[in-house]
Amino acid sequence: MLPFSVLAHDSGSRARRGTLVTAHGAVQTPAFMAVGTRATVTGLTPDDLAQVRTQVVLANTYHLLLRPGAELFRRVGGIHGFMRWPGPVLTDSGGYQIFSLAGDRTISEKGARFKSYVDQRMHMLSPEASIAMQTAIGSDIMMVLDVCIESTADESATRAAMERTHRWALRSLAARSNPQQALFAIVQGGVVPALRRASADFLTQQPFDGFALGGLAVGDTRTQREEVTHFAAELLPAQRPRYLMGVGTPPDLLVAIGAGIDMFDCVLPTHLGWQGTAFTSTGRVRITRGANAHADVPLDAECGCATCKSFSRSYLHYLFKCSEPLAPRLLCIHNLHHYHTLMAEARAAIEAGCYATYARRRLEAIDRHEHSDVSMTPV
Amino acid sequence: MLPFSVLAHDSGSRARRGTLVTAHGAVQTPAFMAVGTRATVTGLTPDDLAQVRTQVVLANTYHLLLRPGAELFRRVGGIHGFMRWPGPVLTDSGGYQIFSLAGDRTISEKGARFKSYVDQRMHMLSPEASIAMQTAIGSDIMMVLDVCIESTADESATRAAMERTHRWALRSLAARSNPQQALFAIVQGGVVPALRRASADFLTQQPFDGFALGGLAVGDTRTQREEVTHFAAELLPAQRPRYLMGVGTPPDLLVAIGAGIDMFDCVLPTHLGWQGTAFTSTGRVRITRGANAHADVPLDAECGCATCKSFSRSYLHYLFKCSEPLAPRLLCIHNLHHYHTLMAEARAAIEAGCYATYARRRLEAIDRHEHSDVSMTPV
Repeated sequence: MLPFSVLAHDSGSRARRGTLVTAHGAVQTPAFMAVGTRATVTGLTPDDLAQVRTQVVLANTYHLLLRPGAELFRRVGGIHGFMRWPGPVLTDSGGYQIFSLAGDRTISEKGARFKSYVDQRMHMLSPEASIAMQTAIGSDIMMVLDVCIESTADESATRAAMERTHRWALRSLAARSNPQQALFAIVQGGVVPALRRASADFLTQQPFDGFALGGLAVGDTRTQREEVTHFAAELLPAQRPRYLMGVGTPPDLLVAIGAGIDMFDCVLPTHLGWQGTAFTSTGRVRITRGANAHADVPLDAECGCATCKSFSRSYLHYLFKCSEPLAPRLLCIHNLHHYHTLMAEARAAIEAGCYATYARRRLEAIDRHEHSDVSMTPV
Repeated sequence: MLPFSVLAHDSGSRARRGTLVTAHGAVQTPAFMAVGTRATVTGLTPDDLAQVRTQVVLANTYHLLLRPGAELFRRVGGIHGFMRWPGPVLTDSGGYQIFSLAGDRTISEKGARFKSYVDQRMHMLSPEASIAMQTAIGSDIMMVLDVCIESTADESATRAAMERTHRWALRSLAARSNPQQALFAIVQGGVVPALRRASADFLTQQPFDGFALGGLAVGDTRTQREEVTHFAAELLPAQRPRYLMGVGTPPDLLVAIGAGIDMFDCVLPTHLGWQGTAFTSTGRVRITRGANAHADVPLDAECGCATCKSFSRSYLHYLFKCSEPLAPRLLCIHNLHHYHTLMAEARAAIEAGCYATYARRRLEAIDRHEHSDVSMTPV
């Protein structure tokens, strides 16, 4: 069983400070995992990731299955050597991709049949095939293949997806071959409390190394997401790590940490960085806005990242206007640093027993500067 | 006058080993300058450049005039602080761009009138305007605005372009205001020896800090280029640096160093890197070729760059196939490192008095592996 110890609890919330020990090193939680879907975090080297204090890279089984494929990972001995990332790697199972890439796929009890976007060949992603691929990848933490549907689906569809997720979780457990690789289950059940409870009850009776909350940030509102997170986190065993999948904005993270979540991943810091939006201590900054052409100051005066220590907003603005590839790289570095710093502050606040106060202040500061909704025009 | 000293001469060629001292540091010659047209070397940070031992960054007056414009450079105090490159910067005058971007421009004795590709406004680039812009940029070495035409132009057109280049060179000298910024003249005259001689005779009588050979690699053959380089380099004063503009491949550089050239620039290492072609000790490698999918070895086993020390061809191949932005960055780092290492080896060989032998061996090795013509399909 993946070693996980809770080192401290916050006094004013359910937040907790833990350590997870994987085959490739320890992870201090709460932790944000950098999304490296294709065995690369867009544009960044492993040295860049170490510099912004990334602890875990999250890669994607579905994409890696299609390219470069399992044979490559078996040949080179796994993802760590291939991408030269010496730290922990978590692999998502591909459940979300099967759900979101709806064209040309059919899902049955056996698994999902779909056409490769690389070479148009048909593939079958079953719970067993996902575990086999994750075994080849050699990730430190594997995820079960789940059935992920919209939060807005009706209750019977949500129940059916959850029940199949449970059967697939048992098949995933049975398919696991390498005890060095941890395996997390994924609690489904949409925004229906009774289903979330049933899912947690079922899955936590099985010997999984950790438990994730899936099926959020897929059509639900921020309020629904927060309610489900609070409710469902409490249903998970205290001695196992809790992972909230695909969520989210800094406010999402602050709230979920207070609900007792230990692990996060989200494409926002990297994707928005590549699109020219930076997260700063005074809210989001869209670097291409005209005002930044004249701003000979760092993106964030309070930030200690390599980008803020060296470059001005006016230079970053100019680079983006020229479509120069250095621009998104520098913003991506800044955004990951921003997220990892938020996590480090949260960990320190929990250790000091003042997380609730810290989170409230941070949330108020963010609210002062912006609305947290992703769809809002950034400041 | 820009301090330049020749430290050693090769015994078997005209190659020489020198040091150039600019306001932002010394440059060991022969030197290859990294092309940073828009105040950025595509995708690389100044730290990356320092790591591959780049000595000089070459920026472009024409592009920087249009964006971000002179006002920005005056406001921030020049290019060094803007792009955070602490070392020497050379600015090309824009002569080549006026020549190559033929649409919507008219050239008169006064200068070139053209439409901005950024905002469609009309601009006048005269010798005086180019020097004013280069003064704002604050480059360590400025170039005169020249009239650059095809090597295949007839003799009277070539003569007319040369004579205007001379008049513009005198106007550039007169327009210079900051004695901290060196100014180089550009010898024109196409592939006509008598014109090259006339151009060198005229320009070397003026107090320029250095002399460039322009108008090569613009339609001439490799043989013509080598003949003109050998002939014209000898016409330039021994005590001033000699710069062969826009040339070229590793064989071009090896030959030109033997002719007594001190400085080079070329887009090849960066542009080919972004297109997936690497220069290696065993010839060019097109990383997207199928064979590299199975090559779990470095790009170049003899190379000590960050890319070769960490990543395999199979990983680089995979990243290129996925259009991942890390891929061109890693090849660009390798290619610049390859060019700078070639220069370092050349400098060492000149100091040891064995450059001619070194260059012959290198050229033979390159010939064994590939044809040097850029248009050839890389190995």
